[in-house]
Amino acid sequence: MTGGLVAAEITSVPGASKVFRGSVTAYATELKQRLLGVDATLLAERGAVDPQVAAQMAAGVREALGADWGVATTGVAGPDPQDGQTVGTVFVAVDGPSRTGTGSARGGKVEHLRLNGDRAEIRMESVRSVLALLLAELAGEQTGNERAQDTERNGGF
Amino acid sequence: MTGGLVAAEITSVPGASKVFRGSVTAYATELKQRLLGVDATLLAERGAVDPQVAAQMAAGVREALGADWGVATTGVAGPDPQDGQTVGTVFVAVDGPSRTGTGSARGGKVEHLRLNGDRAEIRMESVRSVLALLLAELAGEQTGNERAQDTERNGGF
Repeated sequence: MTGGLVAAEITSVPGASKVFRGSVTAYATELKQRLLGVDATLLAERGAVDPQVAAQMAAGVREALGADWGVATTGVAGPDPQDGQTVGTVFVAVDGPSRTGTGSARGGKVEHLRLNGDRAEIRMESVRSVLALLLAELAGEQTGNERAQDTERNGGF
Repeated sequence: MTGGLVAAEITSVPGASKVFRGSVTAYATELKQRLLGVDATLLAERGAVDPQVAAQMAAGVREALGADWGVATTGVAGPDPQDGQTVGTVFVAVDGPSRTGTGSARGGKVEHLRLNGDRAEIRMESVRSVLALLLAELAGEQTGNERAQDTERNGGF
């Protein structure tokens, strides 16, 4: 639903190529399965605008691109409802090294947004939200590492 | 180099899902091979900023997404040169039904741009150029079809 805007925002920063590998805009629902490995039954039963779909997209793009972290957005930017979901219903997801699993554990953290505004505003707010979620997860990862180091240090004495 | 902006521009239009299937931002050079099937030897010998690479990206994304038409951009948005190419060197490409081939004939029409401006300006001008190239090709296709129909009609009488 952000249609390339998450990648565009990241690559607006000079030097982005040092950390950014790429992105997939799976706009047609079928491509969420074909390119990102989202479960076809899930897509058929729940539609594209679903928290589990978002989680599997984040895990799938991470795997497809060989990245440490993957993020995804799926939702309804409007002006028309989609898959029985109202305009402004958005799910953003992040998947990272500490959250990888298989089967039902696959996928990472997901946030459910209910946004107001026009198509452009909903898209931009979704970009902001998913990047904020990624930053929060990276900060948590960092804190986790520091804690691990502290523990190790303490354990060493 | 446009990093998702071509897709973002197209999907800014309500109803884009009726014609737009998706996009791939292959920012890391390796992904141009892995996701878009660009020839690895070509990438190794010429780097990512090359007219043939652009043509193969357009053909590759068209194939990967099962689309009628594919477009691609590759270039240097700056601020630093890349792969021995100066800032503002950009190749935009389009690949469509009438231009599909194999081997050396693979890939479609390519334009070489030499752009001025900052990173944001070079990116936006590249987006405009590749969409203009696509529109011109679609218009040509249309004219070609009309001609074919005319010929058939004339032939029928």
